[in-house]
Amino acid sequence: MKQRILVVGGVAAGPSAASKAKRVNPNADVTLFEQGEHISYGICELPYYIGNEVKEKEQLITYTPQRLEQVKGVKVKIFHRVEEIRAVKKQLVVRDLDREKVQEYEYDRLVLATGAKSRRLGLDNEDARNVFRVNSLSEGYALKQFIEEEKPLRALIVGGGYIGMEMCEALVNNGIETTLLHQGELPMSGLEQEARKAVLGELVKNGVHFKRNIHCRRLKANEKGNVVAVDTSGGEFSADLVILSLGVEPNVELCASARIHLGPNGGITTDQRQATNVDTIFAGGDCCEVKNLVNNKWMYIPLATTASKQGWVAGENAAGGKATFKGAIRAVAVKVFGLEVAQVGISSEEARQSGFDVVSEHISGDSKISFYPGNAKVFVHLIADKKSRRVLGANVYGGVGSVLRANTLGVAIQQRLTVDEVFRLDMIYSPPFAPLWDPILIAANQLSKRF
Amino acid sequence: MKQRILVVGGVAAGPSAASKAKRVNPNADVTLFEQGEHISYGICELPYYIGNEVKEKEQLITYTPQRLEQVKGVKVKIFHRVEEIRAVKKQLVVRDLDREKVQEYEYDRLVLATGAKSRRLGLDNEDARNVFRVNSLSEGYALKQFIEEEKPLRALIVGGGYIGMEMCEALVNNGIETTLLHQGELPMSGLEQEARKAVLGELVKNGVHFKRNIHCRRLKANEKGNVVAVDTSGGEFSADLVILSLGVEPNVELCASARIHLGPNGGITTDQRQATNVDTIFAGGDCCEVKNLVNNKWMYIPLATTASKQGWVAGENAAGGKATFKGAIRAVAVKVFGLEVAQVGISSEEARQSGFDVVSEHISGDSKISFYPGNAKVFVHLIADKKSRRVLGANVYGGVGSVLRANTLGVAIQQRLTVDEVFRLDMIYSPPFAPLWDPILIAANQLSKRF
Repeated sequence: MKQRILVVGGVAAGPSAASKAKRVNPNADVTLFEQGEHISYGICELPYYIGNEVKEKEQLITYTPQRLEQVKGVKVKIFHRVEEIRAVKKQLVVRDLDREKVQEYEYDRLVLATGAKSRRLGLDNEDARNVFRVNSLSEGYALKQFIEEEKPLRALIVGGGYIGMEMCEALVNNGIETTLLHQGELPMSGLEQEARKAVLGELVKNGVHFKRNIHCRRLKANEKGNVVAVDTSGGEFSADLVILSLGVEPNVELCASARIHLGPNGGITTDQRQATNVDTIFAGGDCCEVKNLVNNKWMYIPLATTASKQGWVAGENAAGGKATFKGAIRAVAVKVFGLEVAQVGISSEEARQSGFDVVSEHISGDSKISFYPGNAKVFVHLIADKKSRRVLGANVYGGVGSVLRANTLGVAIQQRLTVDEVFRLDMIYSPPFAPLWDPILIAANQLSKRF
Repeated sequence: MKQRILVVGGVAAGPSAASKAKRVNPNADVTLFEQGEHISYGICELPYYIGNEVKEKEQLITYTPQRLEQVKGVKVKIFHRVEEIRAVKKQLVVRDLDREKVQEYEYDRLVLATGAKSRRLGLDNEDARNVFRVNSLSEGYALKQFIEEEKPLRALIVGGGYIGMEMCEALVNNGIETTLLHQGELPMSGLEQEARKAVLGELVKNGVHFKRNIHCRRLKANEKGNVVAVDTSGGEFSADLVILSLGVEPNVELCASARIHLGPNGGITTDQRQATNVDTIFAGGDCCEVKNLVNNKWMYIPLATTASKQGWVAGENAAGGKATFKGAIRAVAVKVFGLEVAQVGISSEEARQSGFDVVSEHISGDSKISFYPGNAKVFVHLIADKKSRRVLGANVYGGVGSVLRANTLGVAIQQRLTVDEVFRLDMIYSPPFAPLWDPILIAANQLSKRF
């Protein structure tokens, strides 16, 4: 009999797992369930579609259900919500949302790729028609349509993390007066103070109103069902449009019934083969935690890069392969208007919590030679462990050339190089591209003097 | 008595060595000799000064002799040519070119930083007034002045290496019709075929006339002493201006008298402390060979990055320190009009000569996500060893973002990562900066399938 592989979730890790499983075992019967309308799309690209940098909404979709079936040989069932895993019987209970019918599907191997869900305020009117999250293609399309049809003049964005930053730029690009309500002193809580200040400066420079230390108390709606104002610890803010970008958490509702283990951050923990504790069940993507390679701790890093790799590995192993995913350092970047911002490795705060004795240095350097046209300042904040001299993490931010430099430090961090080894790296010098002493080398040299 | 440290050569490694020596031993008496007028300048920046990207000629100079004396405490003697090393007596014989006087200087430690000299055609009229090399600041200034005053319409560039590429762009920027005479089939002989073809395409696209397989036979001069035409194996080419960019070789004339050992490429070989075989004599910069960290062979890599590090180490050790320079992978880049071109590590040819069983792959990827404005193609040519699966070298070329990516591969090469390890690198995905599968990862994945 044909091997039956079921995959739950269709955004990133799911299609990756399903396609890989079918490639590894072409005889397998691979079926993917997605509760929404779309599969295989980029949530990361949504802000750029809303901000009009990406013109066609079709560009956000890598595979339609039809194409995934044709090209990869995966059966795709959209509008199908998996409601229960019967691990002992190796069955899924699936609701067909179109026909309101519940059916059981049997599997030999199961891959969970249920992704993440947006955090909520827990307030009334949170699902009003002018309140949006940017957590699915449908939601993104709806937001874009809302902006085009209703032409909102003032928007509130609640939450100043990565998505909050991208949405600030997207809304300002649409000519919307944008206020960012943030619970902390500075935006982007995962970064170091210096980078966070630079981000704030860039927001303000581009006309975003930043409100610090804000907690939302009430969403006030009018009779049409639109939120017209948000009452907060810092006063009332009126708006025609509200974006909630409060971060995400693992979507693991199915796990309890199957007794799948969760980690300290609420995500599924797996071994390097992406196998869960339950026999025949694999998992990948934003529903999982990730082993951080810098401090060897479970971390929740919901990123497309990690998701697609985990999905790939889960799919290969579900089909009988022997792939492994060892973990991630966390390599992430965001464009905040004209500012490039990247983080690789762990923060100084995470390093302290992991028991490292943190030494750090913050420097500025030139992207090109200082007098070459188009040169920009690049800032490097390098974080190391005093005892081992190992580089643990970095913020790299500034003008053009900041983010790609972060990848170079990323490899150094992944390879556990010391500050001294980073300083000795052989790097390119060429006037149009990099100065004789690249900002990375300057940072390592300056940091080495702090030990 | 004060320690006497003499440094010969003032461009890159020399000032670096002298400054470092003085810093390590502030009581030392450090003197630097330079036969020309200028010290501490960037030859690499000259093409951009000639091409009008860099506006002020003073910007090319890091330290004037006066400033190096004031700021670093180094005595600087310009227009002083060192003519002989008397190693047994620990003496230098130095000619003061201004006063035509020869004097002896005694040293406790000597640092040789005599740099490189331009290769010559060995033909008459090679030093005619409209024939230039780009090997010193004075020569660069003279060329710029020649262009501004004599407004040449047609130029010949002889030699299609890195400097030849940069000079093509510099001359075209000046509105000069430029013909490149090259001895091989394709420009840039150190790169792989694919990159070389791309470079040729970019040259032609920008109006440069490329003449392949050319050997120069005669430089024809007029009565004014200007070369008016070059007679070659491929016919005669007339010109108002001739640039010779034939590459450089180590300037080691002083070494014979002191019995300083030279390596297979004609440069000084040193230990990791930059000490030569002769007691008390150190060397650094373009007069030296460099241990290539990829194949562990002596190589001649005349680059400012290597020179300044070697100079630094030579200076520190001359003053009694214990610094080391372990070698370089070769990390180099050039801008060819709109094309970014970088090489890290060794070429497939060098790999074969070093006994590796070469496997390579050439791929194209996107710099950003494919539909993000400003996305450019990035090409990666990855070279690995079949047996160990180690990545040995890479060409990275294409649009914006190619050169900085090469540095990321550079770290991987330096750390001796395998193709599989490169494929597993955790790299940034962010639509404005990099696609989900960075070209580096695509290259590693495709290459891994060739084993």
